[in-house]
Amino acid sequence: MRSAPPIERLVSNLKRLPGIGEKSATRLAFFLLGANETQVQELSDAIARVKKDIVLCEECFDLTDHSPCAVCRDPARETGVVCVVEEPADLAAVERAGGFRGRYHVLGGTLSPIDGIGPEALRIAELEARVERCAVQEIILATNPNAEGDATAHLIADRLRGRGVRLTRIAYGMPLGGDLEYTDHVTIGRSLENRREID
Amino acid sequence: MRSAPPIERLVSNLKRLPGIGEKSATRLAFFLLGANETQVQELSDAIARVKKDIVLCEECFDLTDHSPCAVCRDPARETGVVCVVEEPADLAAVERAGGFRGRYHVLGGTLSPIDGIGPEALRIAELEARVERCAVQEIILATNPNAEGDATAHLIADRLRGRGVRLTRIAYGMPLGGDLEYTDHVTIGRSLENRREID
Repeated sequence: MRSAPPIERLVSNLKRLPGIGEKSATRLAFFLLGANETQVQELSDAIARVKKDIVLCEECFDLTDHSPCAVCRDPARETGVVCVVEEPADLAAVERAGGFRGRYHVLGGTLSPIDGIGPEALRIAELEARVERCAVQEIILATNPNAEGDATAHLIADRLRGRGVRLTRIAYGMPLGGDLEYTDHVTIGRSLENRREID
Repeated sequence: MRSAPPIERLVSNLKRLPGIGEKSATRLAFFLLGANETQVQELSDAIARVKKDIVLCEECFDLTDHSPCAVCRDPARETGVVCVVEEPADLAAVERAGGFRGRYHVLGGTLSPIDGIGPEALRIAELEARVERCAVQEIILATNPNAEGDATAHLIADRLRGRGVRLTRIAYGMPLGGDLEYTDHVTIGRSLENRREID
């Protein structure tokens, strides 16, 4: 015997989410069964509506309910500094970190020859056009610190070199709260290389 | 700036689920934004419908779409052995483990004087009535191995003693795949106490 079909159906739907296995899905399903009707309905609605209400920003390609997005519409944000990220989730992470007052450009992925993703599949031409069109002084390449992210950052840097725009890459080093004992040697090596004076 | 309102709304709804923090909620939200329409709609529907389509089994008090539930309706399951659990999720865990061919009784919680939950808030009277009504030979007390679960098991054993029903408690010991180094001393103590001959 298994659980009742409506519970099984919910569990199998929840299991398709990233990071949610059989156990978590079952725990979530039983939690929802015990939760109040309003909370359950709100969650269901929020899921159903999120895709319908969201479009891509015509300027930076972030997900937004209104194009251009809030950052691109905000006159207080510097137009001269553009932070290039792989995905909307990366943009959200930089915004959550706070402190960055420039604009963004979402590539929509990274180079990945193994999956057949070449430069034409990313929004690199759109970034080049944006550098021409707006007075961009600095491009911060904030693709992820792995082989694909590095390759993508280097390709973009090659394409934009010689156009009078400053090209920077986010820093590599020890994460805050990290532990040398459990950190890979490449990160430790970069962290030593990029050491700074204590002031 | 934060994400677009429909995304924020979804993240804040997901964050109310147990074990889902800000980061997981954001990851799930972006996953759903990238998932196909059908998958997202199915998840939304499964959540909306699960509470509407589920009732309590009149016999064992498990959650079911049809009372009596599949276990209580199944003539192949022994009526003489009743496994007493705290919650429907515990029943589901025992069923997933397989091998148990008896019936269940869901208490709906444990004794918890600190939260004002006394014996009358649990389905103990219903269990007593069931022992009288059906020919129950054994009650397996499968409440959780913690203070509340133990207290509840003992209370039920006290109530049912002298009625000719065998009263058993699930075994304590080392979990499979566990490591003595990281196991608490009470569990190790119980595991030694309950040691068995190797055959």
